[in-house]
Amino acid sequence: MTSSLTINEGKPIRCKAAVCRKAGEALVIEEIQVDPPQAYEVRIKILCTSLCHTDLTFWKLDSGPAARFPRILGHEAVGVVESIGENVDGFKQGDVVLPVFHPQCEDCKDCKSSKSNWCARFADDFLSNTRRYGMASRFKDSTGEDIHHFIFVSSFSEYTVVDIAHLVKISPEIPVDKAALLGCGVSTGVGAAWKVADVEEGSTVAIFGLGAVGLAVAEGARLRGASKIIGVDLNPDKFEIGKRFGITDFVNPALYKEKTISEVVKEMTKGGVDYSFECIGLASLMEEAFNSTRTGSGKTVILGMEKYKLPVSLGSYDLLRGRTICGTLFGGLKPKLDIPILVDRYLKKELNLDGFITHELSFEEINKAFNLSMEGNSIRCVLWMDK
Amino acid sequence: MTSSLTINEGKPIRCKAAVCRKAGEALVIEEIQVDPPQAYEVRIKILCTSLCHTDLTFWKLDSGPAARFPRILGHEAVGVVESIGENVDGFKQGDVVLPVFHPQCEDCKDCKSSKSNWCARFADDFLSNTRRYGMASRFKDSTGEDIHHFIFVSSFSEYTVVDIAHLVKISPEIPVDKAALLGCGVSTGVGAAWKVADVEEGSTVAIFGLGAVGLAVAEGARLRGASKIIGVDLNPDKFEIGKRFGITDFVNPALYKEKTISEVVKEMTKGGVDYSFECIGLASLMEEAFNSTRTGSGKTVILGMEKYKLPVSLGSYDLLRGRTICGTLFGGLKPKLDIPILVDRYLKKELNLDGFITHELSFEEINKAFNLSMEGNSIRCVLWMDK
Ligand SMILES: [Zn+2]
Ligand SMILES: [Zn+2]
Ligand SMILES: [Zn+2]
Ligand SMILES: [Zn+2]
Repeated sequence: MTSSLTINEGKPIRCKAAVCRKAGEALVIEEIQVDPPQAYEVRIKILCTSLCHTDLTFWKLDSGPAARFPRILGHEAVGVVESIGENVDGFKQGDVVLPVFHPQCEDCKDCKSSKSNWCARFADDFLSNTRRYGMASRFKDSTGEDIHHFIFVSSFSEYTVVDIAHLVKISPEIPVDKAALLGCGVSTGVGAAWKVADVEEGSTVAIFGLGAVGLAVAEGARLRGASKIIGVDLNPDKFEIGKRFGITDFVNPALYKEKTISEVVKEMTKGGVDYSFECIGLASLMEEAFNSTRTGSGKTVILGMEKYKLPVSLGSYDLLRGRTICGTLFGGLKPKLDIPILVDRYLKKELNLDGFITHELSFEEINKAFNLSMEGNSIRCVLWMDK
Repeated sequence: MTSSLTINEGKPIRCKAAVCRKAGEALVIEEIQVDPPQAYEVRIKILCTSLCHTDLTFWKLDSGPAARFPRILGHEAVGVVESIGENVDGFKQGDVVLPVFHPQCEDCKDCKSSKSNWCARFADDFLSNTRRYGMASRFKDSTGEDIHHFIFVSSFSEYTVVDIAHLVKISPEIPVDKAALLGCGVSTGVGAAWKVADVEEGSTVAIFGLGAVGLAVAEGARLRGASKIIGVDLNPDKFEIGKRFGITDFVNPALYKEKTISEVVKEMTKGGVDYSFECIGLASLMEEAFNSTRTGSGKTVILGMEKYKLPVSLGSYDLLRGRTICGTLFGGLKPKLDIPILVDRYLKKELNLDGFITHELSFEEINKAFNLSMEGNSIRCVLWMDK
């Protein structure tokens, strides 16, 4: 695989990228220039990339400071190290690597603590280009104009430059398309069940929203031996799909006019589930997820980014009676520590990654992948750079 | 101490009790009749009792199903077993015991789990008298009328009858007035820091409300080695008092007109505390407590019962960035398991209990204790039954 790697150490590379020129418009495959990596940076050749809902969200975003064009989207990918900048330890040419939006600098107070996966280098505004050196872009179009990066990855390009805080070396044994899924949605879901909720054997689980993240929560809960995994989704097709990831019961909210979802879940579980997960991003569903858990020890994990930035309203007495609610980014995983563990569990045939890939296309067909995702027919579509 | 114990096994006892006849009116010391204990019950002679804010709340409550009169209040106490009913294992005449409103039946799914201190026998409505046999009272007044129990304890009486799920045997070595404090507020606060938040060495803490519960949170955090313990209270005298329990910094919200308390706390701690505790019962303060914690791993524990039953409104993005909020009753402690541990830590001179006792009176002076508590001048007032 790495035999085809051309090395242009210290020089700019000219290659193809799918550039988002305007919100909501088809991406344009253009020839761009990718600068050499600077200190603490690595330039990688992308092998394959997949499409996550967050790409769609920022593709459609037409106002506010986070709407920046032209831009190279994409943040689930696997690549090979083409060259490294100064002060780069732990990476060398030819390494198979996974870029990841969530950093692990290994140096800040949070990275050194085992309490969470936070890292002080996380740029909360989703605006930053390359993090360590501020906003300067490593991409230029044919006219010499800067092209914006996207959440530290920008994988819709044959080459990209990534800060080492956002890069994980992985085993070359795992098929790269399966590994690419670990860059965002799947890791977020599996991690939420494993690291954040710490789901235990025999416990009951409710998952609100069965997209890739929700299905990955199910997969994580299944691996942990949950006895009942209730999927909640308006699309009845999701139940059959969900069964592959351990969903045992299904609730279609459209079928209940007189009852709230939490009432239905409580009836199904004699008082509520041990763990609930919100994977959509609606405050009203976060509240239903909270209300679905059992008194005394119920735990709710929020994974969805609230679409309208609405607050979550919780009954203070419901909280007082032993319930917990928390949120998480990247499923509580420390990328450099935990992604290799997930890779290992895949190689041991424990973790189901294959089931997430519903479509495969060539990179040139990227706009088709956007359409598939919008139509709701794909869980993950992998784009191959060299096919 | 137990030498003065008269045994009336199987027979009613006539004794003195402070009866609340009408909401907000002075208690009346009356001669009452205390029935013998039934199955799973123990009749105890109260040695001393202290006054908690919840007694005041239910004393003042003049409407709704929880307002029940005549009633014997009181739920922080130590007593001696006078006689036992059928099926009582683990208690015998002369044992020093602590009655506690929070049950541990040792038999339900929750009691058998280490995940929380919930017990299926907990009666959420605060109405129940003796739990296992429903609402029947063990108290009668001189006219033969039933007197209501109060949250399974009713310690403002020389004798009371308690279900064994609400009774903890304690070491006779601990002075009974210190032990009585462990029946509610102090255990709740210490437990919240120890069991629920799991405060760790060197961490930072903010406590909203420095009543007995808040001071006990400080004491728990101090024992855990917290490096900074910020007390928030409108009464500036509380800072001096708080220092005895480990409070290192003090915020008086009245002094900040331009800033929210959470902004002040964040400035004091470079971004927020590791742990915050709400010990008052106001949704707005619960929200401030939540907003006072640091991104990535902040944890908020709710101990206060919201006074107006208002919901708590939390920023969904603030949650998503790794914050946790949870509530707890009785500080996450399993009474039979954890109260003996606190007793032990007192006997080892680690846990400060003496500092909570600001007043001591004879049982006959109980209305004076109510006044002291309302005036805000007492943390805990101990009432001695035999003095
Ligand atoms: Zn870091
Ligand atoms: Zn994503
Ligand atoms: Zn129980
Ligand atoms: Zn109390």
